[in-house]
Formats: sequence, C-alpha cells, structure tokens
Amino acid sequence: MNKPLDHKPITVEHSAIPGSRKVYQKGSLHPELRVPFREVCVHPSANEAPLTIYDSSGPYTDPDFTPDIEKGLPRIREQWIRARGDVEEIEARVVKPEDNGNVSAGALAPQFPNLPKVLRAKDGQSVTQLEYARRGIITPEMEFIAIRENLRREQLAEVIRDGEDFGAEIPDFITPEFVRDEVARGRAIIPANINHPEVEPMIIGRNFLVKINANIGNSAVTSSMEEEVEKMVWAIRWGADNVMDLSTGRNIHNIREWIIRNSPAPIGTVPIYQALEKVNGVAEDLTWEIYRDTLIEQAQQGVDYFTIHAGVRLAYIHLTAKRVTGIVSRGGSIMAKWCLAHHKENFLYTHFDEICDIMRAYDVSFSLGDGLRPGSIADANDAAQFAELETLGELTQIAWKKNVQVMIEGPGHVPMHKIKANMDKQLKTCGEAPFYTLGPLTTDIAPGYDHITSAIGAAMIGWYGTAMLCYVTPKEHLGLPDRKDVKDGVIAYKIAAHAADLAKGHPGARMWDDAMSRARFEFRWEDQFNLGLDPETARAYHDETLPKEAHKTAHFCSMCGPKFCSMKITQEVREYAAGLSDNERADIEAGMSEMSAKFKALGSEIDVPAANEPAE
Amino acid sequence: MNKPLDHKPITVEHSAIPGSRKVYQKGSLHPELRVPFREVCVHPSANEAPLTIYDSSGPYTDPDFTPDIEKGLPRIREQWIRARGDVEEIEARVVKPEDNGNVSAGALAPQFPNLPKVLRAKDGQSVTQLEYARRGIITPEMEFIAIRENLRREQLAEVIRDGEDFGAEIPDFITPEFVRDEVARGRAIIPANINHPEVEPMIIGRNFLVKINANIGNSAVTSSMEEEVEKMVWAIRWGADNVMDLSTGRNIHNIREWIIRNSPAPIGTVPIYQALEKVNGVAEDLTWEIYRDTLIEQAQQGVDYFTIHAGVRLAYIHLTAKRVTGIVSRGGSIMAKWCLAHHKENFLYTHFDEICDIMRAYDVSFSLGDGLRPGSIADANDAAQFAELETLGELTQIAWKKNVQVMIEGPGHVPMHKIKANMDKQLKTCGEAPFYTLGPLTTDIAPGYDHITSAIGAAMIGWYGTAMLCYVTPKEHLGLPDRKDVKDGVIAYKIAAHAADLAKGHPGARMWDDAMSRARFEFRWEDQFNLGLDPETARAYHDETLPKEAHKTAHFCSMCGPKFCSMKITQEVREYAAGLSDNERADIEAGMSEMSAKFKALGSEIDVPAANEPAE
Repeated sequence: MNKPLDHKPITVEHSAIPGSRKVYQKGSLHPELRVPFREVCVHPSANEAPLTIYDSSGPYTDPDFTPDIEKGLPRIREQWIRARGDVEEIEARVVKPEDNGNVSAGALAPQFPNLPKVLRAKDGQSVTQLEYARRGIITPEMEFIAIRENLRREQLAEVIRDGEDFGAEIPDFITPEFVRDEVARGRAIIPANINHPEVEPMIIGRNFLVKINANIGNSAVTSSMEEEVEKMVWAIRWGADNVMDLSTGRNIHNIREWIIRNSPAPIGTVPIYQALEKVNGVAEDLTWEIYRDTLIEQAQQGVDYFTIHAGVRLAYIHLTAKRVTGIVSRGGSIMAKWCLAHHKENFLYTHFDEICDIMRAYDVSFSLGDGLRPGSIADANDAAQFAELETLGELTQIAWKKNVQVMIEGPGHVPMHKIKANMDKQLKTCGEAPFYTLGPLTTDIAPGYDHITSAIGAAMIGWYGTAMLCYVTPKEHLGLPDRKDVKDGVIAYKIAAHAADLAKGHPGARMWDDAMSRARFEFRWEDQFNLGLDPETARAYHDETLPKEAHKTAHFCSMCGPKFCSMKITQEVREYAAGLSDNERADIEAGMSEMSAKFKALGSEIDVPAANEPAE
Repeated sequence: MNKPLDHKPITVEHSAIPGSRKVYQKGSLHPELRVPFREVCVHPSANEAPLTIYDSSGPYTDPDFTPDIEKGLPRIREQWIRARGDVEEIEARVVKPEDNGNVSAGALAPQFPNLPKVLRAKDGQSVTQLEYARRGIITPEMEFIAIRENLRREQLAEVIRDGEDFGAEIPDFITPEFVRDEVARGRAIIPANINHPEVEPMIIGRNFLVKINANIGNSAVTSSMEEEVEKMVWAIRWGADNVMDLSTGRNIHNIREWIIRNSPAPIGTVPIYQALEKVNGVAEDLTWEIYRDTLIEQAQQGVDYFTIHAGVRLAYIHLTAKRVTGIVSRGGSIMAKWCLAHHKENFLYTHFDEICDIMRAYDVSFSLGDGLRPGSIADANDAAQFAELETLGELTQIAWKKNVQVMIEGPGHVPMHKIKANMDKQLKTCGEAPFYTLGPLTTDIAPGYDHITSAIGAAMIGWYGTAMLCYVTPKEHLGLPDRKDVKDGVIAYKIAAHAADLAKGHPGARMWDDAMSRARFEFRWEDQFNLGLDPETARAYHDETLPKEAHKTAHFCSMCGPKFCSMKITQEVREYAAGLSDNERADIEAGMSEMSAKFKALGSEIDVPAANEPAE
C-alpha cells in the first residue's frame, strides 16, 4: 500500500562551507574511523595554523561527496554493529495505513526506495552503548567521539583552562576510556540506534562540549517531505548536533524514513504524537498496545532517542490547575487527559519496564519528557515541575538497571534567578544523567524573538551543566519555522552552547574566540568572515557598507573610517611602547604617582555636603 | 557660514503603536506634569485591565501630535528650569567651520532653523539634579520619574516580589523622595541638560527599571542628517531610553542640533570624537583648549551626558601591550596615543576639575569612559581594565564633590563566568555609581549576531546590577547599522533589560509577562501580538502560516493544528479536574502510592553491574 508515487527529485544544500575545508582524522584503536572536522583556512600573513572546528554537517559539506537522497547516506556504523555479534536481521514490522495517518493514495508521500534490513538484539539482549561501557568495551563509537571532542588540540602547545564548571569534570583531553567511563556512569549518552548506522557518533554529557538540537517536522496544517529533509540538512549545516522530528500530520512514517536515511545526526522523536494520530487525535482512545507498536515501528526505522512523558503521573495533574499556563507540553497534556479520562496512572509509567526492554533491543535512548514543564515565567520551578522531576529521577534508575541510556528533558520558561536551582535539582535528583533543556526562555514578552529570550537562558543553563540545548526559533509561539528561522535558531543556540563552553572553562573553547580576535586585531577581514559561525552573513553585512574587494584588506572598517580606527591606533601605540627605554618607562610611572597625589589633595579641599545628608 | 541649504523635508515614523494607546498621568507635587505611558488594549473577554508599559517613544506615537522636525519638540522642561532662578541666557558660543569638519558650502548639512537661546548656570553655580537632590529639593524631573517608574501599578491589588537582587534596594513603589534620595547618594542619575528641555525625564540607577541605550551617528564613510534623525526616532519607538550620537564624519555640529531638538530621550556623545575631527584626525595634535571648547559647544547644544576617557592613564597603557586585542575603545586609543606621543598624563585626567566645572554649569552628566575595556574574551577582567576602573572610582568622588552626576562605562567582551566579578568590583570601586555596559559579548565567534552574543551578557550584568545597557546591533564589528539593525539591537536589549528586571524581582516586571501568558493560554491572538515588544513582527510571523482573519480567534495555532493543541487540552483537563469529588481525588492519590511501591520493588529485583564498576 506504500507504493511510491512520482515525485520530483529532492535537492539539498551540499556546498562546502566558504573558507573552510573538510578534513578527517583516523582512529587509533579503530583505524577505519574517519572523524570529520571543519578546518578554517587562515591567511598566510597570520603565521598560524588553521583552526579546527567541530563539524556536525555530515558528508554534505564534503566536495568529494555527491548526495543521493534516494539512496541515503553511507552506512558507516554497519560493520561495527554487526561485528559485535549480538544483533540479528529480523522481519520488519509491516507498515500499516494508520502509520501514515490513513492518507489517501493520492496524498501518500513516497516510500523511501532503498529500505535497509532491520536489526534487533538477539534473544532480548541489550545492545546499548551503556551495556558495552559497563562491560568495559571501548566501541568504535566511543573512540570516534573522543577524537571528535578533542578538535585536534593535541597539536597545540597550550591547554587554556579558565572557567567555573560548577562541579563538572572536564579533562584536558578526552580519551576513549573517558568516554566509556562517562557512559558507564550514566553521565553521558551516545544516541545511536543500531538501525541508524548512518550516524556520525556524538555524545551528550556535561563533561563534553555542549550540544544543540533542532526541531523539524510537519504538522496537520502545513509542510511536505521535501521540506523536512531539506530542513534537517540545513540545520546540521549550521551546527545542529541532533535533530528531532516532531511531525504531527499525515505521512509521518514515510517522511521519517527519508529523514533518518539521510541524517548523519541522531534523530529523536516523541512517539506519542504518532500514536495519537493513529487514534484520530482522541487522547482517551490511546492504549498501551498502540503505543508499544509505535515504539517498535520507530525503533526499527532507526530513531535514536524517544521523548517519553512517563513522569506525568495522575497524582501530579491537579498541581497544574492553578498555573497561569497549565500544561504546555503536548505530550504532557495528552497523557494528563488520558489519565483523568480513565482514572488511571499514566500507562507510560506503569509499562516503563516493557518500554526499557524494547529500547535496549535497538539502543534507543530515553529522553525523559518534562510533560509538566512551565509554560510561563509565572509557573517556573513550581510543585508540578519538581514533582515530575523527582519521578524522572526514579525512572532513570530503572532504565539504568535495564542498561538503557537516559537523558532528562527540562524547561521551558524560567527567569534567570531560578535557572541554577533547576539545574542543581536535576543533577541531584537524576544522578547526573544529562540534562536537555528547551531554552529556557527568560521572559514571555517577546513573541517573534524567542530565539533570543531563550538563548539567554540556554547559555546560562549550559554553563551550569546542561548537556544539550534544544533550540527555539523566532517563530516559537507563532508559527512553523521556515528555512531562515531554522538557521536563526541554530546560530543563536551555537552561540549559547559556545558561551557555555567558554564559561565552564572547556579547554577546547577559547582557541576559537582567540583566533577570531587575532584576525580582528590584524584586520584580516576574510579570516573574520570565515572564522565566524555564519561566514556568509558576516561577509554580506561587511559588504553592505564597504563592497569593494580592496576593503577586504583595508586596515579600517566602515564604523570608524580610514583615519579613526582604534585597532589601528592601538597598533601604533604598541610599536611606540615597545621603543621606550626602561628609564622612560620609570619616568612615566613616577609622573603618574605625582599627579595622583596632587589630585587626591584637590579632591579633599572641596567642601560639599556628604552624599547621604541632604540639607532640608 | 552655516547658511541653510535647500533640502527635502525630513519625515519620521510617527504612527501609533498598533493595539496600544498613549495615555498620560498628571503629577501631584507638580500638577503640570504629563507622564506618558503606552496602554496595551486587551480583549474584553479577558475581563482584565489594560497593561501599562513604560513608554520611551516620545510624542511621536501620540496621534494628537504632529511632528514638525524643523521646529523641534515641545520644550516641556523650560519653565521648570527657568523657575529655579539659577540660570541665565548667554551669548551662545559662535559656531566655527571646524565644528562641521570644515566641510565645503555645498556639502554643509543645513543648520537647524529654530535655534533656542542658550542657558548656563549663573556665577559658576551648579545646576545639576545632584545639587538639588542634596539640597533636599524634589524637582519636577524627580516626580516625573517616580510616576514613570511606577507604571500605574498603584491601581493593582498585588505587588509581586520574586527575585534575587544582589543587594539592590528596590522599593515596592517609587516615591519622588526616593528618587531624590537615590540621586543625592549618587546611586542614580537623571541625564537632563538645561539646554535640552525637550527631554522627558528618565533615571539610570540599579534601584529602577534597567534602561537601554542605542547608538547612532554618521561616519566618514557614510550616513546623512536625515538618516540620523530618523534612526533616533526609530530607536526610541522600539524602546531605547537614551541615544548616543557617535558621529565621526562631517557636519557633526549641525547634525547633532537636529537630533537634540527632536529627541525626547537624553542624548550622549563622546566629545573627543569631534575634537579629533577638529585636528584632522591627528591624536597628537589634540589640546586641552580644543577639547574644552568642544565640551562647551556640546553642552550649549544640550548634550545630556559626555563619555570622557579620563581613566586612560599614562601608567596603564603598557598593561595593554600583551593583550590579544589591545585597546579597542576609540576614545581610549586616541588618549593612549596622545599620552605616549607627549610623554604626559592624559589631559582629561589632569583637567578633570575644570571639566567638572563646565559640566555642572549645564547639568551634563559624566559617563566615565572605559577606554581600556577588553575587546575580546581573552582580555576580559585584566589588569588594564581594572586599573582604569580604580581610577574611575577616584574620579567619581571628585565629580560628586563638584555636584556633577556620574555613571561608569563597562565592557565589552566578557565570558559569562567573569561578569559578576566585574559588576561587583564596579559597585565597590565606584561607590555604587550607576554602571553602564556595552553588552558584554559572551563570545567572539559570531560576527553578524553580536546583538545575541551580547544580549546574553547584558541580561546577566543587568541582573547583577548594571543600570543601563548599551545596545549592540547585528552589524557590530562589520558595518554601520541600518534601520533594521537598530530595531534588532533595541529589541534584543529590551529583552535583556526586562529579563534582568524579572530576575532582580523588580515589582513592575512580572505583570507584563503574566499578561502575555494569560493571553497565550486563552488564545487571545490579537492580545499576544499587541502585548509583545514588537507587535508587527509577531503578527506577521503568525500570518505567514495562518493568514485568515478567522485564525486570530481560533483556539489553535499552526504548530499543532486544530485537534492537537496542548493549551486546548489543558483547558479540558482543568474543567475535568474541577469536576472531581474529594473521594475521587483520594482514590487517585491512593492508586498512585500503590503503583509507586510496586515500581520500587521491580527496580530492585533487576540485577545488573553498578554503574561505576565496569566488568573488565
């Protein structure tokens, strides 16, 4: 019934990033690894090495790679997965009409033409990275991540450590063993479904670089398959480390297959969205059986993590009754409605052990959903939010006992003074399982600009310890993000994540800022553009005022003009200062003490009423 | 020689803000006061009062006002100033060709056609708000400010206090006496030159709402007079409380006159920029006499505050030699160059007492410039920066003894973990004089997005105690801001300032967020647009996906579609929960404890290796 339809070929952005080249580093334990980086070229006059940047963009930015969307990406992990000997090919679950929303044949999105075999753990085994880590096995995924996180800093002379890490334990360099240990302790996860071998392994944990997630997905109102694949490629191009497919409309199953087969980034979903579509949007009609079947459907496609709102317990729902904005999580409100309609405990909670059994058979990670997160400043850090967080801590322990990887979702809307308390409570309650927050937005008053209201909160909570930041686009609360919104959201969140890395004192963070600042000081305009998060926009902004090619090498900019540039003057000052003799220097300092003494005397001669005592 | 040229009439944006109306509140001590507010209309179904918002936009948003740019704004303070009996009309300093950069007649910007009489303090008296405050006088400016800061909250039942204020002392309501006392203590300033009677008085201090400043100004490379007046009106429309004219090109004098005569917001300048133009950009040729003459020129025009880089002392300059980005302040680098060229102490420091004498004769406030601020993450909180800050503290005491109002400028580029230390040091060193910071930018890697990198730092430092935040536009480091950049910068900084007010627990902050959140929860789409910082953009974003008028009253949005809206479900949940009997509620809670016990048992039955002990 999923007969492919005629469709026009999908094209995705696959040009190289301007001013950068794609490079790969081999593995040592696993020599077959090819860990990608973006190397930013620097003008020869700088006499410095090119800068290595973390590269989330996948093969799309490699000029040697020609994407074929109908074929999917190379399946780089397939050999590693099969070599472990604990998986088997199975008959895939048969796709049902309701998986695509019972859409009519004419409106059905085409099936992905190159469907892979489905793998599952043998005999109910656990095939998770957590399982391997606990057994002491350093998987190729773990070594890949260690290399990726180090950004080739081994080649540099100096390790810069300057920050406040609030108890994080970031080493100078990441070893494969460190990755294994952090995963074993549950402090980090590697989202990597055995049915998503196209993934370039990445890690989420507070002792690693802060990551960001971009949401895409169609809705009942709008969006098509082409758009969603393009958005995914576009989001990772600008820096998204993970992508969540939050589709809620028709063709959910087929669209998801196209996304996963073409994504080098882990893909997350909220399975209850699809389950609800299967019961025509009537929350009360949801059953464990329908949900369970949806989990299996998505696990077999290769979804890397599931948002599961198992902490929305019956007894917590009344805690939301007096809120200003009630329950704003879609998943949370669906489960709340189900619980009350049936007078029963949330079936995601009561069936949590069975959910674990499914997920460990494919290595799907938990993203334990915060269904009761605050939807406004007024509701932040309230009883409902924290009651749920306690339950998520309890569920984390159960998942860990089942060897399933876990991260915890967080808010939402939180004023700045309540962010640290939220972070601290999560670390304590959830045994340091990675925190994954949406923003938080630090004020409610700026619809149209919530990428900014939330980048403020995201930077802060990232500093305090959040491991992955879920982006918010300018369209939040107003509409569906388009291509520009996705980019704006991703860039705002790359800023937040990097600002957090800097403040934590991550040893891989400062070299990027310093490379940019040296380029700025030395008027290397091309380098400034290329070193930026968004070279195209930086160049375009510069050229609006100074479009000529000669201005790219000019020792001035449009803000101050040719004879009035502070950086130019500073360079002159520096040359001048370098020429001073020791005696001249001493003279200067003596003159200064004299002047200071004179001034202090002057100050005390002036007689006025003291500041705090106004004459009546 | 300043013969006006033919020119096309300047038009500025002067429409009302959509969905709001302009209202005025009268004074009590001074009944003639008309304090402006923006009242946001709310749909009658909400059954709540309209929201009162602080209004920086001046008469331009009043439909009863027709701007005449060649006439200038009403001179609302003129009577108050003259009634104090301590000023006299003087012969204005004669405008010289070099004041406008010796521009040829054909290129001269037209002189403002309606020049006012120039006022000055009689007999070297001090006519500053600080002088009056210390004498126990509550000026009309002070009462105006008290009313303005209270946002008509006296009409509300509740005062919400929820925040961490780090030692600020914000009262539940601002009284005129509180304003007077804060000014007398030097903890707040009222920038209000006696020659700028068009100003709607406003206050800068950490026990008041956090304010923002927008920079405009031409440069040698580009910009015209019309553009700058339009930018000023545009900036205050979106929320700029102050505007700095940082012009460095030709026609500086004439352009400034047009700006001041049409600005209800205080105008700041950096006089050394114009002084440098007068010596053809050669820093070594600057003299105290040229600078002094420039101060008088600008004070007589009505500039409300001067950035003066008197803390760039000869002995501190070598502290910048090993910086990554040296001296990035234009004023700072000019003075550093002058000091080294002459082997002399900064003449702004040695003549500081004479500067005070000029400024108190017109009530120009100091904005003590941070000429040695860091220009990169690498240079933040370094010896040069803090040495200068110590000197600014010393100069603050001198200015206060001369009854001159003072605020202190701050950085710049500072990673998050160093922001609080910077704020704390400023409060301690400068006797709680208001801090006025540029950002700070929390990372260097995002040219094109520095309104965001800096809004993060601005929100945090505003929370910690900064009284005014100087905006950064997306063009920072790249080019001159256009109209869109000015708006983007202002909105980003209104977000930062409001997030700071919220986190400080300012009692006037939360009601805005709560009004928005109620509108959101109740699907009052029109109210959501109108209550936002930028109603036009919010509406446009919504309409991109759901353009029909009927969707403005729809109980769903484009993100989730009609049958899948969490807010809608929450409302159903709430109705359901309200119908539960006490027995039913008890049943629910009992069921939950039972389930919880069962689950804990299950968890402990599962036997797996402990997380920290991988089997080898």
